Amino acid sequence: MSDVTVHTWEPNSNSGKPLFALAEKGVEFEHAYVDIVKFEQHMPDYLALNPAGTVPTMVHGDRIFVESTPMCEYVDAAFPGPKLVPDDPAARYRMREWALRTDIAAAALSVLGWHMFLGPMVRAMDPAELERLIARIPTKERRIAWSTAAHATFTEQQLADARARVGAYVAELDAQLAMTPWLVGDDYTLADTVTFANFYALPMTVPEYANRENAPHYMDWLTRIYARPATLKLFRTSRSLGQRALQIAADLGVVT
Amino acid sequence: MSDVTVHTWEPNSNSGKPLFALAEKGVEFEHAYVDIVKFEQHMPDYLALNPAGTVPTMVHGDRIFVESTPMCEYVDAAFPGPKLVPDDPAARYRMREWALRTDIAAAALSVLGWHMFLGPMVRAMDPAELERLIARIPTKERRIAWSTAAHATFTEQQLADARARVGAYVAELDAQLAMTPWLVGDDYTLADTVTFANFYALPMTVPEYANRENAPHYMDWLTRIYARPATLKLFRTSRSLGQRALQIAADLGVVT
Repeated sequence: MSDVTVHTWEPNSNSGKPLFALAEKGVEFEHAYVDIVKFEQHMPDYLALNPAGTVPTMVHGDRIFVESTPMCEYVDAAFPGPKLVPDDPAARYRMREWALRTDIAAAALSVLGWHMFLGPMVRAMDPAELERLIARIPTKERRIAWSTAAHATFTEQQLADARARVGAYVAELDAQLAMTPWLVGDDYTLADTVTFANFYALPMTVPEYANRENAPHYMDWLTRIYARPATLKLFRTSRSLGQRALQIAADLGVVT
Repeated sequence: MSDVTVHTWEPNSNSGKPLFALAEKGVEFEHAYVDIVKFEQHMPDYLALNPAGTVPTMVHGDRIFVESTPMCEYVDAAFPGPKLVPDDPAARYRMREWALRTDIAAAALSVLGWHMFLGPMVRAMDPAELERLIARIPTKERRIAWSTAAHATFTEQQLADARARVGAYVAELDAQLAMTPWLVGDDYTLADTVTFANFYALPMTVPEYANRENAPHYMDWLTRIYARPATLKLFRTSRSLGQRALQIAADLGVVT
């Protein structure tokens, strides 16, 4: 039995980062599913682990980890398996710079994610059930924040700005990947892990930017990561949002 | 002659992080002063180094570094001197978690910093000179952003929220420092560097939170960092905002 448990939602965005890192390292772990569409990250058991109520939370023995990018560096350092962090200090800097840029660009993507997927999933619930789930959130502050989020809609301008921001980041990724096969050079690193976890679904989310004509190097990189053994194995465990990855992989010609 | 140049403003916030890290390591470096009050970070020479127009930018040989926290990890790894990053992977995770929490809390502090210091410094300029400095900013997008910032004022509610957020973070720091002398345990690490660079002036900025009664462990930690040889040596090079540090150190009983 593994002494690593990741309490998290789907292999998607922050929620997915440690899943991908552990899978790449070949570390056995338990995935304790936290359904954020049912607001399970606000339940007392979860908040006892992570008072901020964010996903993911990783537990290794008696240690608790809540910040998803530093968590991946811990996974690389603490477990055997292929090294996902370069030895050279300058390469390590570039890895962290890309991870940071990805985390910043992901804020724009989350606007689209909420609009296209999470918002509709939440609003598809029976309204009485939605109110019940919000009512059981332990603190008033979180109840207000999630009630607002559950009913949030974005203006056309906000959505257009978010699409343009994500598109600009695709161009930045593509320019780097025109020079090197992976974001930091010749080897796959955590910069690729973190960026893929956030941006694996762009051919579906922003097809006007993420296509072979506009961003051929990004698309090649995406295809190569989908073809890695760890990737599809993980997406096959998906119960909801992550399942779209199997369709994207098939569209990219990866045997799923 | 050193092959390290830090193009940056004061030993303050992001701008100061690599200065403190290099000083702690005992690395010789040039400080190429970038006066952000005169918008020098928007000049073509600077943008050639760092197209985002942020401070700091560090140049080591032919390598350029623009993200301030990963830059500090590079400084620790690439140069001799005392180790500022722990060897133990779990301690390294905690170092990065504190650095990240500090960077997030610093956003609230920057509201107060703009209100109390930078905004008045900018608005004290001759209006024609201010317009001239804004007009020479190379891109329209940056001109609009800085023109808005230069004239920005905050509501009382925004300022009160920012003070409360900074105060809450002081309480978090104090709770950790009640348990361990430094943020990650028995040794000074980059978590302390990054946090001090952002929060060294709180006894002046939010005295209602940063005082001996409310936050004795934070105040002790602050005093110990002011007393480190690298700290005052660096603040003595300050030309504007950082000079307040000498007053704070004296108030804390540190011989300046």
